[in-house]
Amino acid sequence: MPEVSQRGIIMPASPIRRLVPLANKAAERGVKVYRLNIGQPDIPTPKEGLDALKHIDRKVLEYSPSDGLRSLREKLREYYHRYNIDVDVDDIIITAGGSEAVLFAFMACLDPGDEIIVPEPAYANYMAFAISAGANIVTIPSSIDEGFAMPPMEKFEQLITPRTKGILICNPNNPTGYLYSMKEMLQIRDIVKKHNLFLFSDEVYREFCYTGAPYISAFHLPDIEEQVVLIDSVSKRYNECGIRIGALITKHKELKNSVMKFCQARLSPPLLGQIVAEASIDTTPEYMLQTYNEYVDRRKFLIDELNKIPGVYSPIPMGAFYTVARLPVDDADKFCSWCLDEFSYEGQTIFMAPASGFYTSEGMGHDEVRIAYILEKEKLRKAMQVLRKALEAYPGRKMPS
Amino acid sequence: MPEVSQRGIIMPASPIRRLVPLANKAAERGVKVYRLNIGQPDIPTPKEGLDALKHIDRKVLEYSPSDGLRSLREKLREYYHRYNIDVDVDDIIITAGGSEAVLFAFMACLDPGDEIIVPEPAYANYMAFAISAGANIVTIPSSIDEGFAMPPMEKFEQLITPRTKGILICNPNNPTGYLYSMKEMLQIRDIVKKHNLFLFSDEVYREFCYTGAPYISAFHLPDIEEQVVLIDSVSKRYNECGIRIGALITKHKELKNSVMKFCQARLSPPLLGQIVAEASIDTTPEYMLQTYNEYVDRRKFLIDELNKIPGVYSPIPMGAFYTVARLPVDDADKFCSWCLDEFSYEGQTIFMAPASGFYTSEGMGHDEVRIAYILEKEKLRKAMQVLRKALEAYPGRKMPS
Repeated sequence: MPEVSQRGIIMPASPIRRLVPLANKAAERGVKVYRLNIGQPDIPTPKEGLDALKHIDRKVLEYSPSDGLRSLREKLREYYHRYNIDVDVDDIIITAGGSEAVLFAFMACLDPGDEIIVPEPAYANYMAFAISAGANIVTIPSSIDEGFAMPPMEKFEQLITPRTKGILICNPNNPTGYLYSMKEMLQIRDIVKKHNLFLFSDEVYREFCYTGAPYISAFHLPDIEEQVVLIDSVSKRYNECGIRIGALITKHKELKNSVMKFCQARLSPPLLGQIVAEASIDTTPEYMLQTYNEYVDRRKFLIDELNKIPGVYSPIPMGAFYTVARLPVDDADKFCSWCLDEFSYEGQTIFMAPASGFYTSEGMGHDEVRIAYILEKEKLRKAMQVLRKALEAYPGRKMPS
Repeated sequence: MPEVSQRGIIMPASPIRRLVPLANKAAERGVKVYRLNIGQPDIPTPKEGLDALKHIDRKVLEYSPSDGLRSLREKLREYYHRYNIDVDVDDIIITAGGSEAVLFAFMACLDPGDEIIVPEPAYANYMAFAISAGANIVTIPSSIDEGFAMPPMEKFEQLITPRTKGILICNPNNPTGYLYSMKEMLQIRDIVKKHNLFLFSDEVYREFCYTGAPYISAFHLPDIEEQVVLIDSVSKRYNECGIRIGALITKHKELKNSVMKFCQARLSPPLLGQIVAEASIDTTPEYMLQTYNEYVDRRKFLIDELNKIPGVYSPIPMGAFYTVARLPVDDADKFCSWCLDEFSYEGQTIFMAPASGFYTSEGMGHDEVRIAYILEKEKLRKAMQVLRKALEAYPGRKMPS
């Protein structure tokens, strides 16, 4: 039998994925599983988006342009203007989710052996896309004890080599919920400018900033606008993860041309998703506010509950809908797996993402989990009860020294 | 400004893409452009598929599984069984169009520097996906004078190196319309087996075989079933190119695991497209027959008309909905561009794909074009009138010696 590529072999299988079969088996045994492991909110998609599907009167579901429907790109431009992100329609390229935007950004910016620097913990799939492009992700750990603040700039400087092509940030952050301050963003900006790097900025959670601190887009930073590659997606803000509509936004002409070649090769982004996304942008301010308030409420509830459990510590996330919490366990991978495989409390258990999947540095995050507050509060309440009981019963319990 | 990757720079921009702005400008001048340059049929999507959209009663458009909805994969298994393709549900991985299936196949099978052999002319985007994976496509020309039959096996043997990982065929063929015979397929099979290669087989046009000769799937070939990587798509058979639903089918366990990692990284294929595709598989035999008959009719008409024009030669395509024709011109790139830019006949012109984009061998196809018979016959009639008049008026006309 012919051998598969090394690339596919070295790609790490995320610890979440390894746990999915255990979660499914638990469900088959009749155990109610609270799935706090992924960013799939239970909040309804806007009515405007769902209605648009019912009113499609096309006879042929044909290819859309490779860079997406112009009407959608025009809507997005207006949307970005509301956030003081001053982009043209031609700077916006529609992709199959934020995922494809990251892949194409890496493909078009990075050659094999090139490096990008990423603060960790970080969204695990960045690694997969870097491996696809043959590029290397170099990580700088941030620490739960500092609330996952941006690591000091000296750490970035130390890691810059002739192969460094960019810095990648996710803001508000998945998995930590951290929101970079203006000061931190300006530091990043200085280093990007000084070393002539790309700044890949994943801002798909911009709607969800909870502390009153402003959301700073990479496009707000002075004098590096051609170096910014913005990654966006409608998945999270309109609760329509399944339609696979994202965008890559750049003002770098040559990069735009290059990304377009990758877009043309795959012909077009999904037509139906584009129709839903375009209609969703017209949803009411009430919908957006309701969603926002729901997360504010869940966040407060979740963090309070977590920190009441003996030995558990979670910083207060400032944005997105995740938190990374430290648990009093020997190994969070084992604990998460044990919860699904061996534990239940009143017929319920909890599925969390072990944080090890978000770090590449050896040993980091071994007692941390990511919890997504994407279920309604009553479910979160039950999930937190389950977690408390699970920690009491877990044989590998270990109070932090 | 930071530099873009070499990968994006070396990726060839297809000659079709270069002509699109000219076609749009002609249309803006009020010229009616017959677009025979792409495989976007004017035939309606099945009612079953369109109706499925109107009946979606989900509240949340959420992620589907990374390998696609199980119900769709089960439907597809039944569908393949009708073609004597004996695959399990777990052998079928749903992708964002056939495009993503090709990309993931290359990513999971080929490392940088690996080679695959492809008879040319060939679908131009294979090249783009190979460049994405850092792999090299090695082409073997087939000839219009032999009706684009499979090149002799010695040619394949001569090109095999220690880096050769596979052979790629498209059957029925885009762009030539050629349909490989059982004899040719068995020859391919022998070489694939002897050298322990992958056989990438793009069979998205299987519905469209016109000569009574049977369609031979790579999965029909004995004793290489774990070496076959089948590329499929619902785009062409149900006229729903825009929904972006395809599939990668393999029985190679390790490859399946590897492909799944790429699938998980991009989270899920488009949900809405999957719903439409699943419903479309239930369309009536009448719909399929009507579509088939329509192409039979268009094909006969187009080929007859082409061969009536002095100096033009087209073999009779046996499948798909394209033909590659030789024109009496100095340079088909120039001629196609001239048709859009400088010529019109009774307010009409024609957009064809210069065949040079389907060859990598220097100088091949310089007087050939690909014509897709994806418009209704009356439009084809007018397009052929335009082509005849254009050839009469074209300054670079050159009768073949």
